[in-house]
Amino acid sequence: MSTDGKADGVKKADKPAILAKTRENLAKIAQWQEKLYADGREGIVFVLQAMDAAGKDSTIKHAMASLNPQGVDVVSFKQPSKEELAHDYLWRAVRALPERGKIAIFNRSHYEDVLVVQVHELQHTYQIAKRCLEDGDFFEKRYAQIRNFEEYLYDNSYRVVKIFLNVSKDEQKKRFLERIDDKAKNWKFSASDLKEREYWDEYQKLYERAINATATPHSPWYVLPADRKWYTRYLVSEVVLNTLEACGPEFPELPKEDKKNLAACKKILLSQ
Amino acid sequence: MSTDGKADGVKKADKPAILAKTRENLAKIAQWQEKLYADGREGIVFVLQAMDAAGKDSTIKHAMASLNPQGVDVVSFKQPSKEELAHDYLWRAVRALPERGKIAIFNRSHYEDVLVVQVHELQHTYQIAKRCLEDGDFFEKRYAQIRNFEEYLYDNSYRVVKIFLNVSKDEQKKRFLERIDDKAKNWKFSASDLKEREYWDEYQKLYERAINATATPHSPWYVLPADRKWYTRYLVSEVVLNTLEACGPEFPELPKEDKKNLAACKKILLSQ
Repeated sequence: MSTDGKADGVKKADKPAILAKTRENLAKIAQWQEKLYADGREGIVFVLQAMDAAGKDSTIKHAMASLNPQGVDVVSFKQPSKEELAHDYLWRAVRALPERGKIAIFNRSHYEDVLVVQVHELQHTYQIAKRCLEDGDFFEKRYAQIRNFEEYLYDNSYRVVKIFLNVSKDEQKKRFLERIDDKAKNWKFSASDLKEREYWDEYQKLYERAINATATPHSPWYVLPADRKWYTRYLVSEVVLNTLEACGPEFPELPKEDKKNLAACKKILLSQ
Repeated sequence: MSTDGKADGVKKADKPAILAKTRENLAKIAQWQEKLYADGREGIVFVLQAMDAAGKDSTIKHAMASLNPQGVDVVSFKQPSKEELAHDYLWRAVRALPERGKIAIFNRSHYEDVLVVQVHELQHTYQIAKRCLEDGDFFEKRYAQIRNFEEYLYDNSYRVVKIFLNVSKDEQKKRFLERIDDKAKNWKFSASDLKEREYWDEYQKLYERAINATATPHSPWYVLPADRKWYTRYLVSEVVLNTLEACGPEFPELPKEDKKNLAACKKILLSQ
C-alpha cells in the first residue's frame, strides 16, 4: 500500500476544525438517510476492510453514529459457519443485502475470501469439486466474480462502496500494546492477532491486488489513512455523505388522488 | 420454439419399453444421489420452466420420485413478495441455493424475471433508481447477469441445469379443459391462465431468446417435448441421471487414522 497511515498532510492543529466538519457531515447524513429510507429506491452497502486494530468497530460507532438504526444493518463477517462453507462464498454476502432504502455496513466482507483465504491457502480445505481447485486462476476468477457481482448490484439499484482503513504497522503495534495493558481492552486482543501480524507484508500485497482488481467507477474503493482516529472518522463521514448525495434520494411525491385524500382527512380531523 | 410437443419420433407402441427405462433411470438416480450427499462436493439446481399446464408439478412428482427428500429442496417461485421485490431479482434464487451435496428443484425460477416481467413490462412498476430503467438494454443486461450468475455457480462447485417443458398450444387447451371439467382438478385452474394464454406467441419468442442467451456448456438448457407425460418423464429422468453422472460423486474415503479407529471400535463392540 503506498499511502501510509499519517501521510495525509493534516496537522494536529487542524483537529478542532476537522471535528466540527465531522459533526456537520453527520447531521447532513442523518437528513439524507431519512430521504433514502422514504424513497426506497436504492440500497447501499458500505464495506469496511482493514488489518486488525485499524479501527473498524470504532469507525462504525462514531462515523455512522447519526444513522437511524431502523434503516441500517451492521453485519460482521466472522469465520464462516458450516452452513456458509457448504455454499458458494458470496452466499452470505447476498443474504446480508439490505432492502432497498436501507444501508448495510459490512464489518469485513466477501473480500476476506481473497485475503485471509489466499494468505492461508484455505481453498484446499474446502469441500468442493476437484475441477474448481485444479484451475490455476482460482483467485483471479474470484476478483472477476466480485467485480461482476458488484456491477450486477449497481445495475439493480444498489451501491457497494468499499473502504480500506489503512493503519501503519507501528500504529498497530501501539494499539495491540494498549489492548494488552488496558484491562478494559483485553477482550479485544487474542494471541492469534500476533500470528496474523507476521503476514503483514503478504496482506498488504493482497489488499493492493484486490483493490486494483475491483475498484470501478460504480463501486469504488477508498483507501483512508487510519493512524489518527479523529481524522479517519472525518474521512469516512465524507465518503458516506458523498455516497448519499450521489444517490440523491427524494421524499416520494404523492399522486394527485392521494393528495386529495390527505386534504379530506385533514378536514375530518379538524371538524372533530 | 422449433420443437413441437409431439415431434419426437417416438411411437405410442414404444411406451412399455420407455416406462421400463424410466424405472431403471430412477433406480440409478437414487444410487447416485446417495453418493452426491455423502460426498458433499457439488450442489445441483434443476430449473423447471414451462407454459402453464405443461406438467411441471407432475414432472417433479414422477421423474424425481426416487430422490431421497433429505437431500432435495423443491422451491416454488411464485409472485415475488414485498421483501423479495425490495431486493435484486436474483436474491431469492441465491437464498434458495442448496448446500453442496444437495439438489434443489426450482419450480419456475429467476428466468421469470426475463419472461413474465418482460411480457407485462413489470420493470416499470419497480421501486428502483431511474438510472436502472433508463438503460435501453434492461433485459439484455439481465441475460448477461444470469449467464454470469450461473457461470459463477459452476466455478464454485454447483451445476445449474435448465429444463424447458415444451407443451403445444393445442395440448395446453386440452389440459385446461380437463381442469375445468374435472372437479378434482378445478383448483389448478384460474381465469388468469386464459389471460396468459393470449400472450402465447410472445412467451414462445421470449423463451427462445432467453434459452439462446443463457445456454452454455456448463449450464445447459434442455428443451423437452411435453405433450405426452410418460415420454417427458423419461426424458427428464435422462437429464437428471446424466447430470449426476457428470458430477461423478464418490463415497468419501476415510483417512488411514480413521480406518484404524473403525477397526478398534469394531473390536470393542464384538467383545461386549
